[in-house]
Amino acid sequence: WAGYLAQILILLEDIMTDPRLKSVYTAMQTANLDAVAFVPGPNFKRIFAHNFHLMERPLVIIIPATGTPVAIVPNLEMASFEKLNFQGEIFNWRDEDDYATAFTSAATALPQLAHSTRFGLEAQRMRVFEQIELTRVFPAVKFTDAHADISSIRLIKSEAEVALLRHAIDISERALEATLQTVAIGQAEKQIEAELLKNLFAMGADGLSFDPIVAAGDNSAQPHASAREDYKVKRGDALLIDFGARWQGYNADITRTFFVSAVSDRDRAFYNTVLAANERGKSVTRAGITAHAVDDAVQQVLEESDFATFARHKTGHGLGLDVHEAPQIMRGNMDVLQTGMVFTVEPGLYRKDECGVRIEDDIVVTDTGHDCLTNFSRDLRIVG
Amino acid sequence: WAGYLAQILILLEDIMTDPRLKSVYTAMQTANLDAVAFVPGPNFKRIFAHNFHLMERPLVIIIPATGTPVAIVPNLEMASFEKLNFQGEIFNWRDEDDYATAFTSAATALPQLAHSTRFGLEAQRMRVFEQIELTRVFPAVKFTDAHADISSIRLIKSEAEVALLRHAIDISERALEATLQTVAIGQAEKQIEAELLKNLFAMGADGLSFDPIVAAGDNSAQPHASAREDYKVKRGDALLIDFGARWQGYNADITRTFFVSAVSDRDRAFYNTVLAANERGKSVTRAGITAHAVDDAVQQVLEESDFATFARHKTGHGLGLDVHEAPQIMRGNMDVLQTGMVFTVEPGLYRKDECGVRIEDDIVVTDTGHDCLTNFSRDLRIVG
Repeated sequence: WAGYLAQILILLEDIMTDPRLKSVYTAMQTANLDAVAFVPGPNFKRIFAHNFHLMERPLVIIIPATGTPVAIVPNLEMASFEKLNFQGEIFNWRDEDDYATAFTSAATALPQLAHSTRFGLEAQRMRVFEQIELTRVFPAVKFTDAHADISSIRLIKSEAEVALLRHAIDISERALEATLQTVAIGQAEKQIEAELLKNLFAMGADGLSFDPIVAAGDNSAQPHASAREDYKVKRGDALLIDFGARWQGYNADITRTFFVSAVSDRDRAFYNTVLAANERGKSVTRAGITAHAVDDAVQQVLEESDFATFARHKTGHGLGLDVHEAPQIMRGNMDVLQTGMVFTVEPGLYRKDECGVRIEDDIVVTDTGHDCLTNFSRDLRIVG
Repeated sequence: WAGYLAQILILLEDIMTDPRLKSVYTAMQTANLDAVAFVPGPNFKRIFAHNFHLMERPLVIIIPATGTPVAIVPNLEMASFEKLNFQGEIFNWRDEDDYATAFTSAATALPQLAHSTRFGLEAQRMRVFEQIELTRVFPAVKFTDAHADISSIRLIKSEAEVALLRHAIDISERALEATLQTVAIGQAEKQIEAELLKNLFAMGADGLSFDPIVAAGDNSAQPHASAREDYKVKRGDALLIDFGARWQGYNADITRTFFVSAVSDRDRAFYNTVLAANERGKSVTRAGITAHAVDDAVQQVLEESDFATFARHKTGHGLGLDVHEAPQIMRGNMDVLQTGMVFTVEPGLYRKDECGVRIEDDIVVTDTGHDCLTNFSRDLRIVG
């Protein structure tokens, strides 16, 4: 009888568990965590299909491995939060009160966690002030960085997610083409950036993946340059554009490098080296190999070229609801690629104060290789 | 002689100190801090007039009260970072190595902080994983939330900063007017949002202060609603638009509420109550009174109205390089307003599932009152 009862209880718990949290429970089990806490952001959006602003008002969800989930919610978000149909206890707090009371009440509702030794935090997203509150109300708890564990729920993209990424990429590529039509010698980088931004939203972006990089001439040699007001593009300049539209939370991330009006033989060879590395990275990709193997193949192309000393960074990063997520495509990362993972292949070479080239595609891993989500031509193109 | 020598040393230190850090040293002295650590974001931008992406690669600046500042910098940002002319020691790390070594070296370079009891962190911006590294390399240190202390360097806006805000606001208002010209019964909220986004960038925004809120009908009653694909605006709906262009890092934040095609007498009274609260908030503002006093005046208008039960949030927040910064305009905040502070006045009322109204202006405090930076009419307006 005890056995039957236990089985019925497990069954009941299963029925009562919010199905949206199943992947979170699996991730917690895999990582042997007593609980996880997370805040608005990509994981929140993946779980609840809705998001909130991450602001000075803390909104924190705590999921214990056993027992009822808990949410700490600012009162002005309650109307939106109620629509989530969150299956747990909600502690909301008003602006004129302090949120400390809500945190204290939340901890009281979670006595099973009072001595947790494995309380996982979304450490690359949660800010220090939210952890300070958690530490205050759980003084005996050992917190741990569970960012990768929690984010593992986003590693494999569904077909619907890939479709949203394709849409974001399509918007981005149409905006890029429209922008290139207007580039001319003498324009400021900032002017080209403004044109690109205008086109992104005219094509239907509902956000930016990140502030675009529009960098010409010497500025292109800085991997994360800022567009300048006072530099006018001139004949022979590289023009590096790294940007992306966001669509329903999903982020495109594309880089193309063009040359203004003319290209020197040296820059052409430089460009073709990066292009070869980009193509190698994509061609070796398939389910079953490691992230290390992809970066290694890419870096070898760069290292064996005449431009070996100008490499600066890894091949790429995962892409989805976050712009930089797992898997990191770099040497030393022995994580095995799986069908449905999406990442960037973006080798670059940077000759300081002279010229930088980066060519970045977004790809999805398949059983036998990859599907390239970016379609914009990689042939060396002269603009302006 | 010893006295002279000490004076010369102080003089030398003064000459050698990076003038951009003066306000940081003052803030540290006021808050009695041994050191502060901060990451890319509004404070970083205010100090160095340049910013970096906040991403999975940690970039951390540590300023000790005495001794040389230290920076931990990802290698791929080095070319950009060098342009800052940072007067301190730089520990850069490459993607293929771990950043742990850079943190360890940074701590070794800061022996004077090994037993610090007042090491201030930018806790509303810095993420948990950066603090985990700091805690690892400074195991005996007591960290404290110094977000408000560090951010105090941004409290008083210069004329140049106000001019940038005015520019961001001007872009925003022109985009709003252009959007209103196209609103029609039957459009989806998401469609109106797309038009607004397009117009913001066509008018010259170089970023968004935040994802806009475009909420009609019942959705307007959620202070932070998301635009829906499947709800078409209809006659009599409130149409609440809360949005802002970013310009060179400075954020506009404006809300106006319109009515589609018609307005009921009740909604008109509802609207006029919010408008009266908005006007009261602005009229009581001047240097020398508390943030509490402004919110109190605003809340009293709402509380004494027929709609007292529909208030949800404080009057406003500071505005500048961050969208939500000090001073928080709410009861209980006894901070005294000073000339040059900029904040929002944004009372709202929300009848659940029916109608929400918010009217938000951005104002700068003056000796005798305020300058209103937003010019868009607040008269009740019928659109569509």
